[in-house]
Amino acid sequence: MEPYSLTATQAVAKFKDGSLTVENYAKSLLSRIDQRDSAVKGWVYLDRDYVIEQARALDRIPHANRGPLHGVGVAVKDVIYTKDMPTQFNSPIYEGDAPKVDAASITILRQAGALILGKTTTTEFASTLRGGPTCNPHDLKRTPGGSSSGSGAVVGDLQAPIALGTQTGGSTIRPASFNGIYALKPTWNSISREGQKMYSLILDTIGFFARSVEDLELLVDVFALEDDESPPQEPFSVKRAKFAVLKSPMWSQAGPGTVAAMEVGAKLLRDHGAEVEEIELPAEFDKMQEWHETVMHSDGRPTFLPEYQVAKDKLQAFLVGHVENEKRLTRAEQLKAFDGIAALRPRIDEIAGKYTAIITPSVRDVAPLGLDSTGSAVFNSMWTGLHTPVVNIPGFKGEDGMPIGLSLVAPRYRDRHLLAASKAVGDIWEQKGGWKRTV
Amino acid sequence: MEPYSLTATQAVAKFKDGSLTVENYAKSLLSRIDQRDSAVKGWVYLDRDYVIEQARALDRIPHANRGPLHGVGVAVKDVIYTKDMPTQFNSPIYEGDAPKVDAASITILRQAGALILGKTTTTEFASTLRGGPTCNPHDLKRTPGGSSSGSGAVVGDLQAPIALGTQTGGSTIRPASFNGIYALKPTWNSISREGQKMYSLILDTIGFFARSVEDLELLVDVFALEDDESPPQEPFSVKRAKFAVLKSPMWSQAGPGTVAAMEVGAKLLRDHGAEVEEIELPAEFDKMQEWHETVMHSDGRPTFLPEYQVAKDKLQAFLVGHVENEKRLTRAEQLKAFDGIAALRPRIDEIAGKYTAIITPSVRDVAPLGLDSTGSAVFNSMWTGLHTPVVNIPGFKGEDGMPIGLSLVAPRYRDRHLLAASKAVGDIWEQKGGWKRTV
Repeated sequence: MEPYSLTATQAVAKFKDGSLTVENYAKSLLSRIDQRDSAVKGWVYLDRDYVIEQARALDRIPHANRGPLHGVGVAVKDVIYTKDMPTQFNSPIYEGDAPKVDAASITILRQAGALILGKTTTTEFASTLRGGPTCNPHDLKRTPGGSSSGSGAVVGDLQAPIALGTQTGGSTIRPASFNGIYALKPTWNSISREGQKMYSLILDTIGFFARSVEDLELLVDVFALEDDESPPQEPFSVKRAKFAVLKSPMWSQAGPGTVAAMEVGAKLLRDHGAEVEEIELPAEFDKMQEWHETVMHSDGRPTFLPEYQVAKDKLQAFLVGHVENEKRLTRAEQLKAFDGIAALRPRIDEIAGKYTAIITPSVRDVAPLGLDSTGSAVFNSMWTGLHTPVVNIPGFKGEDGMPIGLSLVAPRYRDRHLLAASKAVGDIWEQKGGWKRTV
Repeated sequence: MEPYSLTATQAVAKFKDGSLTVENYAKSLLSRIDQRDSAVKGWVYLDRDYVIEQARALDRIPHANRGPLHGVGVAVKDVIYTKDMPTQFNSPIYEGDAPKVDAASITILRQAGALILGKTTTTEFASTLRGGPTCNPHDLKRTPGGSSSGSGAVVGDLQAPIALGTQTGGSTIRPASFNGIYALKPTWNSISREGQKMYSLILDTIGFFARSVEDLELLVDVFALEDDESPPQEPFSVKRAKFAVLKSPMWSQAGPGTVAAMEVGAKLLRDHGAEVEEIELPAEFDKMQEWHETVMHSDGRPTFLPEYQVAKDKLQAFLVGHVENEKRLTRAEQLKAFDGIAALRPRIDEIAGKYTAIITPSVRDVAPLGLDSTGSAVFNSMWTGLHTPVVNIPGFKGEDGMPIGLSLVAPRYRDRHLLAASKAVGDIWEQKGGWKRTV
């Protein structure tokens, strides 16, 4: 097994028992990147010599002083500040910009010993659907999703075990599904977003990509994320657990891949002794999609005003439209949407709290052909607005053998419980869902 | 009249008619600062040569290309990034730190032609009550308030016409009252907080200090802040306007200065033909103070985790307490507070929407003696949580001739209407409220 294909948890074990140095691990990752980057194009910045230098410095740290993420390679979406690398937001306005400041998430990762590898592609300001140049590693003719395009692609392609993304609509969960990997969108504001470029304050959430739930747990440990009660010590068993299947108000947009995954996923859990109940949300949730869009567009108005004033011509028309309030959204409409979503948060906590998790689509279907658009967030934006934690679990197969995942959703601040359940569910779906990693 | 004593609006007029150059204006401000800074101590960073250099560059811009804030001196609270000056948060962890990045607010101000003078004192991360070294210009033995200590003091002391602050509890409105000046805490998220150090996402709001309402209007113009309908063109008249007087659930904490100001303020408006009605809030608002505190402390937990991990020993005990969840707040309590406040926002909009503005205390009383504590935010934190715009209007006199102000509050996104009313109210209170500026 090449070191580059290790999960973070596996790599950490090898650093601990001395069977792998961070330098050799880094070299393996770089060789994978050298081999694949010209096809996948997931990175916007990566300094090979600097990565090796950092790896060597980590190797010199005595075992007793090593952090929980010692040596783990992390790819960072290029909307998150890194003090030693450029941060450019895929915007010509910020070309070459490299302020010496670390985002809160980066400070915490470095403090835990992570090896920050480089910066990954994003759609402009993580705020548009316009894709490129990154390709889906499972089929280069398809989008890797967005806006965390590079982060999803490089983890799916074994070029990094962990990546940071963000989500305002579906920018973490969608690329996770398209690239056949796990992702966690944690409870809103449970992890500091300081130093992460803003789109909508009330929606933007950091996101983590990984190839195992253990790796996501390693991350939430480092970020000190705690539920009110810790999940039980013994491994979660699907047997006698109770899941809700929610087709969501957007179900008419689900393609055959997602329809099949929902059926297979539910059946597999039932076969393993779980109770799986189909639920529908009360009618007031039907507004969520519209409200989410209203909040996002309204919030984009002050957010992109600086760039608009400095260089309107270098800003995508979609974002110019936010600043100019192209949709003619009134303050009254904006507040109705903002307050309407707020009122539904305790409602969804109550509904989701009756189950281990809600199972719901992550995407319309497999990654669409073409790189121009990063796909649709219709199945994600409700959960972003509701602030609930969401885990994408891979395992299903759609058109042309492409991966497809499903979302598991829990009430706010039940992230640890959700991860514990995701591990058991993921084991089943990855083994029997029909999709096998081939890259 | 010395140029340093001009309001922004007055200075702009002089730049326009050619009777004052930005360079001479800057020199006048610097002479005022030279004369007073050793007493007031409001600045943490100010490079005199650089200010002059910037002023000269502004003078070279042809009239046709000048922005609406051309040449106006702006002081910036040191929790807001400026690419050409250090940003240190009054934290030993960030001593000497100077990342080359401008906050959104700074980009917009520069684009409008403002002359960024320097950085002003703040309590640690704008998140504690521990004061010093800044003194109140009206009595050096008293606090200027906080956390925007320097911004309030330098505007009150004629060292700058405009300053940027922030408010999470009462960090803008309180120092405005203590220093005898105007301030606007705009509707939450109506102006981008990008590049402003975070404490609590849902509470933190930028704040503006000035010595006239016209100056605040000049600023909200630049920040493109719009209500659903523009206020009427003709000047607002107090006559036949309808105000609510709200003593607030914290009234028992009001001192004699505030009690008198509320009486005098209401009487003056009645004398000018306004209808002034005393109101009380429904009982559910009694929880606001507790909920605000719960949200602030809970949000401080992820916010200060990076600093805690990097250098816990260099972090104030109060903030260490946030990260360690000293108050043992549960997620359930946190969410109850977060959702509870959210549910009250449309309620307060409805109540406040019946009036031109709600008149309510800005502070317990005049600035307390001593520099150790920056005073109490009990009369402000409710409005911060409710996201409403608040204007502090000076004009009243308390103990030892110290200034005292009152707050005018309007529904969310009625900032322009609130400012229009504040101008008329301020004219009356400044003329007849009993306090006259002497510095």
